Amino acid sequence: MDFETVSSQIPSDKLINVGIVQHFFSDDIDSNRARNLSAIENLASEGAQLVVLSELHDSLYFCQTENVDNFQLACELPGDFTDFYGEAAAKNNVVIVTSTFERRAPGLYHNTAVVFEADGSVAGIFRKMHIPDDPGFYEKFYFAPGDIGFEPIVTSVGKLGVLVCWDQWYPEAARLMTLKGANILIYPTAIGWNPDDEQTEKERQRDAWITIQRAHAIANGIPVISVNRCGFEEDPSGQTSGIDFWGSSFVAGPQGEFLFIAPDNSPTESVVEVDMKRSEEVRQWWPFLRDRRIDSYTQLTRRFID
Amino acid sequence: MDFETVSSQIPSDKLINVGIVQHFFSDDIDSNRARNLSAIENLASEGAQLVVLSELHDSLYFCQTENVDNFQLACELPGDFTDFYGEAAAKNNVVIVTSTFERRAPGLYHNTAVVFEADGSVAGIFRKMHIPDDPGFYEKFYFAPGDIGFEPIVTSVGKLGVLVCWDQWYPEAARLMTLKGANILIYPTAIGWNPDDEQTEKERQRDAWITIQRAHAIANGIPVISVNRCGFEEDPSGQTSGIDFWGSSFVAGPQGEFLFIAPDNSPTESVVEVDMKRSEEVRQWWPFLRDRRIDSYTQLTRRFID
Repeated sequence: MDFETVSSQIPSDKLINVGIVQHFFSDDIDSNRARNLSAIENLASEGAQLVVLSELHDSLYFCQTENVDNFQLACELPGDFTDFYGEAAAKNNVVIVTSTFERRAPGLYHNTAVVFEADGSVAGIFRKMHIPDDPGFYEKFYFAPGDIGFEPIVTSVGKLGVLVCWDQWYPEAARLMTLKGANILIYPTAIGWNPDDEQTEKERQRDAWITIQRAHAIANGIPVISVNRCGFEEDPSGQTSGIDFWGSSFVAGPQGEFLFIAPDNSPTESVVEVDMKRSEEVRQWWPFLRDRRIDSYTQLTRRFID
Repeated sequence: MDFETVSSQIPSDKLINVGIVQHFFSDDIDSNRARNLSAIENLASEGAQLVVLSELHDSLYFCQTENVDNFQLACELPGDFTDFYGEAAAKNNVVIVTSTFERRAPGLYHNTAVVFEADGSVAGIFRKMHIPDDPGFYEKFYFAPGDIGFEPIVTSVGKLGVLVCWDQWYPEAARLMTLKGANILIYPTAIGWNPDDEQTEKERQRDAWITIQRAHAIANGIPVISVNRCGFEEDPSGQTSGIDFWGSSFVAGPQGEFLFIAPDNSPTESVVEVDMKRSEEVRQWWPFLRDRRIDSYTQLTRRFID
């Protein structure tokens, strides 16, 4: 056991300025990248030390259909993706959480978050572990499930528990990141409404999405950052009414309290101050990690217990 | 595998009328029981098929101090506790979720939920698994941690995932009940404010408590019932300012949506209709159980991963 590592797991006196980039995107990758770069520059100039982009921020959400042509969008790592965002990190001296369609080998792709250190180097990657598949979100066609597991990424602003979108519905993912010393949970995401749904159903869905991520903050006593895209994207196949991405990017503190929430329907670039010291205070008041019944959790590895 | 059991795990066309009993209590056990019985009768007459009482509803919340005299409050099972509430269940033809201080052996006590079938028999018990201990809530002094694990209790209204208070902060507990086929999660609880805390802190605490339980509904696609006591109870030792129990008993549907919420400061007896059919619909839309990465969860049995 490395005691230096352990003692650094909760930075005890840190305020972190987090930059949130909630945007809509087009089918023009260069244009998307230019807007993302502009957002990174803006937020860094406002004091952001960490900038978080949303899921698959260089393209439209191409998983609305199953189309082999979309594999052309995939990026090799390292490659032009890491060149571009590494330079953005270094020039602006910020840690950046990015998201890409990773081409790992011919015919083998992942939905991968890439974290850049403020010097432009790659601090680490996370490959989306839980892969959704439902009408309009055909991710199982495109992405192999991640095989790295739940490993926080060590950066100059803390150990980042980076997870991606569908992972956000799984308390197991948040817990494992926490047990491995993550100081904060970060979810790049792309989630939206079926425009045909009733307003009450839309509200239930967005509220559920916010609530479960706030609960990860509460259960684990650490802050949560969730960054979503916004805007409408049509279904290229014409089979559905497309997706109305619901924005609502937010930051919650370690009691699940809102520190920031973006509108549901417009681009937002905001710097949010997160007090990392509060995690240890909250964990002392509510020592959930102390009382876990680890002797009784073995069946969590079962699909169902018939 | 018993297919009859499997197919009955989600009642597909059931509406259940749930009776919620949020009360304050005194140091007079007979008087508390009489009020509880009156509530059960009232709710049954209004159509309740299941009545849920709050935690340790026959007494004051005696864990505010560590006092050996309080062990006199413990009840043997079976005994006068099961006689009383069994008769209440049978006479009113309702399933009842009760909570008691169980004397299991000399010097060995548990915080135990006892579930009665509508014929008055004991359907099953759950012994609180996660035991809190913080100023004013000295439960580790009184209660040995449960050793039954997370086993739903089979009743005529469904498989009840009964957990108790501090268990509500643990997604692991809710998940294991779900994996074992629970149709609904039920939390008798006794939680309140330190009157000396600021109002903003009080609101954060209550909101966290509601949020994490709603999240159990969302993560597992099943309804949640949480029943708390209300009213102020002073600290017999005079060391603290006592506890202001915050009521706010609630019922959430399988998307975490509120079906009912009680006031924070007054007794409430209410019947709430819960549509059990909605669970399967919601799980089809949001098939979280399908995509769990059970190959990657083994370290959930670790205290921390250094």
